[in-house]
Order: sequence, then structure tokens, then C-alpha cells
Amino acid sequence: MSEPRSEEQVLIAHGGGGEMTRRLVADHMLPRLRNPLLDPLTDAAVLPRPAGRICLTTDASVVQPLEFPGGDIGRLAVSGTVNDLAVMGADPKALSLALIIEEGLPVEVLDRIVASIDATAREAGVVVATGDTKVIERRRGDGLFISTAGVGFLRDGVDLGMHRIAAGDVVIVTGRIAEHGLAVLSAREGLAFDTPLRSDVAPLAGIAASICDLGEGVRFLRDPTRGGLAGVLADIAEETGLSLEVSEAAIPLAPAARHAAELLGLDPLAVANEGKLVVVAAEEIAAGVLDACRKHERARDAAVIGRVTASAPPLVELLTSVGGRRIVQRPYGEELPRIC
Amino acid sequence: MSEPRSEEQVLIAHGGGGEMTRRLVADHMLPRLRNPLLDPLTDAAVLPRPAGRICLTTDASVVQPLEFPGGDIGRLAVSGTVNDLAVMGADPKALSLALIIEEGLPVEVLDRIVASIDATAREAGVVVATGDTKVIERRRGDGLFISTAGVGFLRDGVDLGMHRIAAGDVVIVTGRIAEHGLAVLSAREGLAFDTPLRSDVAPLAGIAASICDLGEGVRFLRDPTRGGLAGVLADIAEETGLSLEVSEAAIPLAPAARHAAELLGLDPLAVANEGKLVVVAAEEIAAGVLDACRKHERARDAAVIGRVTASAPPLVELLTSVGGRRIVQRPYGEELPRIC
Repeated sequence: MSEPRSEEQVLIAHGGGGEMTRRLVADHMLPRLRNPLLDPLTDAAVLPRPAGRICLTTDASVVQPLEFPGGDIGRLAVSGTVNDLAVMGADPKALSLALIIEEGLPVEVLDRIVASIDATAREAGVVVATGDTKVIERRRGDGLFISTAGVGFLRDGVDLGMHRIAAGDVVIVTGRIAEHGLAVLSAREGLAFDTPLRSDVAPLAGIAASICDLGEGVRFLRDPTRGGLAGVLADIAEETGLSLEVSEAAIPLAPAARHAAELLGLDPLAVANEGKLVVVAAEEIAAGVLDACRKHERARDAAVIGRVTASAPPLVELLTSVGGRRIVQRPYGEELPRIC
Repeated sequence: MSEPRSEEQVLIAHGGGGEMTRRLVADHMLPRLRNPLLDPLTDAAVLPRPAGRICLTTDASVVQPLEFPGGDIGRLAVSGTVNDLAVMGADPKALSLALIIEEGLPVEVLDRIVASIDATAREAGVVVATGDTKVIERRRGDGLFISTAGVGFLRDGVDLGMHRIAAGDVVIVTGRIAEHGLAVLSAREGLAFDTPLRSDVAPLAGIAASICDLGEGVRFLRDPTRGGLAGVLADIAEETGLSLEVSEAAIPLAPAARHAAELLGLDPLAVANEGKLVVVAAEEIAAGVLDACRKHERARDAAVIGRVTASAPPLVELLTSVGGRRIVQRPYGEELPRIC
């Protein structure tokens, strides 16, 4: 690789808040991201009057590598924040974008990631309404960190949450699990598999809206990111005091993902997803949830994977494919750094 | 300094999204920051229904050192975001908080900074409604980066901005300039001055609200952070097509700051402030703006520093203390990295 010229890299002076900062933003961000909320470049963006309450959420994205099969840190940041709004039943409207760039980041990489942010925002129906850019010295950062915050509008009457989960409800996952974490890890470790895994990273507001349209039978949604499906199931048991009985055979898992997880010594249930939802719903609308999912390409493998029971103490019990039973716990933490 | 034990430092496993992440948040963040919006720990916080439009803003804070005379990165992050809302005339309501922690950060430093975030949020009348925490490996970060986003409510009819500036308006600054940047740089470089400089970092929503209460004569507010007073004045001339005539002698500047700027070879006009406002107002309310400022301890040195004129081409002209004239330009960028 030839040494890039200085004008092809982000420099520390691009973060000083002066003329060079203005040019970096004007030349490399605004042309892509431009929209009526961002364009005035005021200190804060003014959003339209909401129809209902407001939801606010944030994500810090520190994934490595910055670009991986199926996505990049920009798509991940936008999707993660949109999905945190979508699982509340909110309609995502606007994002803020805070970039922390390590000096030396090739401008072409920045340009690709900004383009990906723009494309993902369009796919999700949100706009980047406001932003901030800082530059730090070499070896004080790691290429690029992106923090996004998101504002969504929440219609009156929409009330999803753990408090609405009851014994007898079913647990649904909207597609094949573990592919984001495995794709990122494979890329980071330089592993090659026969069937290349791709991250599932995607904005899920459309799928969430289709499910929410089913009404009161929809109890709870969450995107199983860090901590994976296991983390969400453990959270449900802990917070509701109810138990979950889940069938391993029912959990959608691609053979390539199963193989990669085995090679890496990971439990696929504990691996991050960035394009899936866990849905808890009343049993009588289970078929309706599956139908709603199958209208969306990204959720056509949706499946009922288990049910909520009143058995005590509150535990997540997995009926394994070989006929055994094991308790699913929240992953401890050290297995999968920098995955999102 | 003795080697801290591992449980006294943030570890990479604290960022994995599992049990250790849960404990870091539960033990070191929630006890301080707890409030009715944050406590449910849902994927997004639900805010009350706004009276009017919504403003959204964001800041990435990368200041070094993390703690400096007069403040720290937590106070800086909260103040910067609150102030971006305040200068729109909005009432700051809620913040999001995204932390990117370098492995090895002493937990006692994290605890102090979280306490400072909490204290500054209380001072500003906002709550931390939602957050995210990530941990990165040693030498891939720099202790702690904080990205905040802020939501404020904007009453109907409030309309501040460059588009409302007209020839004849006066330019006011709410107090002594350059102290934040000089205090941070002095701390970073290990310089000692006879009169220790302290950062002015503070939330300014109260001062901004007092000024906005004066009504239509208030045209434009901005907090002169990166790029300093010079950057804001240059922006006004460039965006309005009007000129500014500013008197150097009228600009509040402490002797210690003047001295420090000379030692560091910096123009105080280009040095960041984090607790001051630039106000453009109709001449007939200039005295009213000064009176409103002087009700607040942090703005008692407010002064009229210049006026807007129609002379072409649009320039910022400084009448120097020694009777000369010079053009004030937007700083280029490289002088002051990592100041906010």
C-alpha cells in the first residue's frame, strides 16, 4: 500500500473548530447528509411538532474493523439507534451524529462511511439532523468512533415493555441469529469460512411497525445486540420474575453460523445481532406476528422459539436439540469486545 | 503511585454487554444519575409531551486532561450540549450520554466524572434520560470520550438566528473570554501561572432564558467554544453579509488570561470559552441585555463589544487597544486540539 498524501487523511487540525473543521464538514459530510433539518447548521436542529410523546436513545459505536462483511460502523450506528426507538413502538424521526476521528483516517474511508450513514438513514426513514466532529491524535483513538442519538415520536396508547409480559405469552425471533457478531469476529481475526458470513445489520423500524400494528397482543420488543439472544431472555426472566422455556431446535441458525461459532468456541445465543428482533406476544396473535414478519425480506425466517411460564424460580430453560435441558444465563462479558 | 488493583479499573469485559456491563452501570452510574426518565432502563427514554417544537443537538467531548482547573470532561459535555440548546432559545429537558472508556481508566476517576455529570445536569435543570457505555482496549482510546445529545423544547414564536441580525444591532459578550481554553492548555502543558486560570465551563440556560425574555430585540445567541469569539464573529459576517466593528478594549479579558495567552502565543479571541454567550441584539435593548446578564453571577462582566454595520465587503474589524485596526478571521484550526 503506498503512503497516502496528507490531504487524503484526516489531520488533527481538522478538529480545531476553525476553517479546516468547516471544510471537512462542508466537503465530506454535508453533501451526502444534506436535508432540511441539518442544512441550517444551527447549534441545534429544530424538529417538527411531535404527534405524541418523544423517545430519546443513544449508542456509542466502537466496532472493529470499521468495515466488515455486510456493513460498517456507519450502518451499525444508524441501525442500532433506529432499532432502539423501533422496539419502543416509536416512529424514528431524527438522529444526531458525533464523530471522533483518529488522525490519519483515510478520507476515502470517512467518505464511504458517511455515504453508508446516509444510505442507512434513508432506508430507515430518518434524517441526520445535527452533528459534531472531533479529531484526536494517532494512537489515542482507533480510526473512528461514532455516537448517535435518536429521537422518535411515540403515539399515545402505545405501551410496550417487560411489565406487559404474562405467563402463556410466546417468544418469537425474527430471523437467523448470531450473524453480526460472527461476521465481525471472523473479519477481525482474519478467519475464512466456506460460506462467508455477513452481518445482519439493518434498520428494523418497518418490521417493528408491522408487528406493532397487531395491537395490544404485542407485549415487548427488543433487538438482541451485545449479549445476544441469551442476554435478552435472561433480562426478561430477571425483570418479570417469570420463566422462559425455549427450544434450541426452533431458533433460526444458519449452518455457516453454527460452524463459525463452533470454530470460535462461542455460544450462538450469546452472540450479537444487529438486524433481528425478539418479540413477546400473546399466544393468540403468534401467527399474526409471523405473518407480519414474513412481509419483510429481513424477517422471513421469523419463528416462535419458546413461551413464558409461571414456574418458579424465574429461569430461562433451553430444551436442547439432543433432548437435554440447560439454563441460559446472561453472558459474563469478556467474550466479544468491540462488536458494536 | 501504586499499581491499582484490577477491580479498581475499568476492564475490557465491562464493555461486553453482559453481566459485567450491567454491574458497571448499576454500581457506578445509576446510583448517581437516577431519575424517573432514566430509571426504567428501557431501550429509549420516553419524554413528556413537549409544549412546542423540539430541538436536538450533540457534542463529542474529547478534552485532555479529563480533569482540569474549573471543570472536567463530564461538566464540559453536559454544559456544551445544554448551551447549544439554550442559544436556540430552547428549554433544555433531557440528555443522552454515550461513554467510550479506555480499559484501565481508574474507577474512581469514572465515579468523579459521573458525579460531575450529575451535578452539572442538576445545575442546568436537565436529566440524563438514556445512555450507552463501551470499553476499548488500552492505547486505542484516551481515558474517556463522552458524547452527549440534548433535547430541548422550543416555545412557538421563539426565532433566534443569524437571519434576524441587522445593521445597527449591538454585539455583547457575557463575560471574560478565553479562560476555558487557557486553563485546559495550561493544565495539559503543566504550565504554572501566578494567578491560576480556571475554566469558565458552565450551563448557561438560565442566562439565555433571562436574555430571551427581553423579546424580539434579541436576534442571535451563540456560545463561543472551539474557534473562540473570533470564530463566532467571522461566522456572523460570512453568513449575514454584514460587517462587524468590535472594540478590543471593550472585550472582557482577565489580566491572567492576557498573560497566559501571551506566554502560549495565542490570540485570546481565538481561544475556546465554555461558559460565555455572544449576544446580538437591537441597540435599544442593549442596556436591558446587560441588566439581565448581571442578575447572574456568571454574566456580571457582560459588555457591549461592538456593532453590526452595513459596510461592504463583509468583514470583522477589530479596533485595537493601541488605536490600530485589524481584520478578525476564523482561526485555521491547528492551534488548539482536544480543548473540548
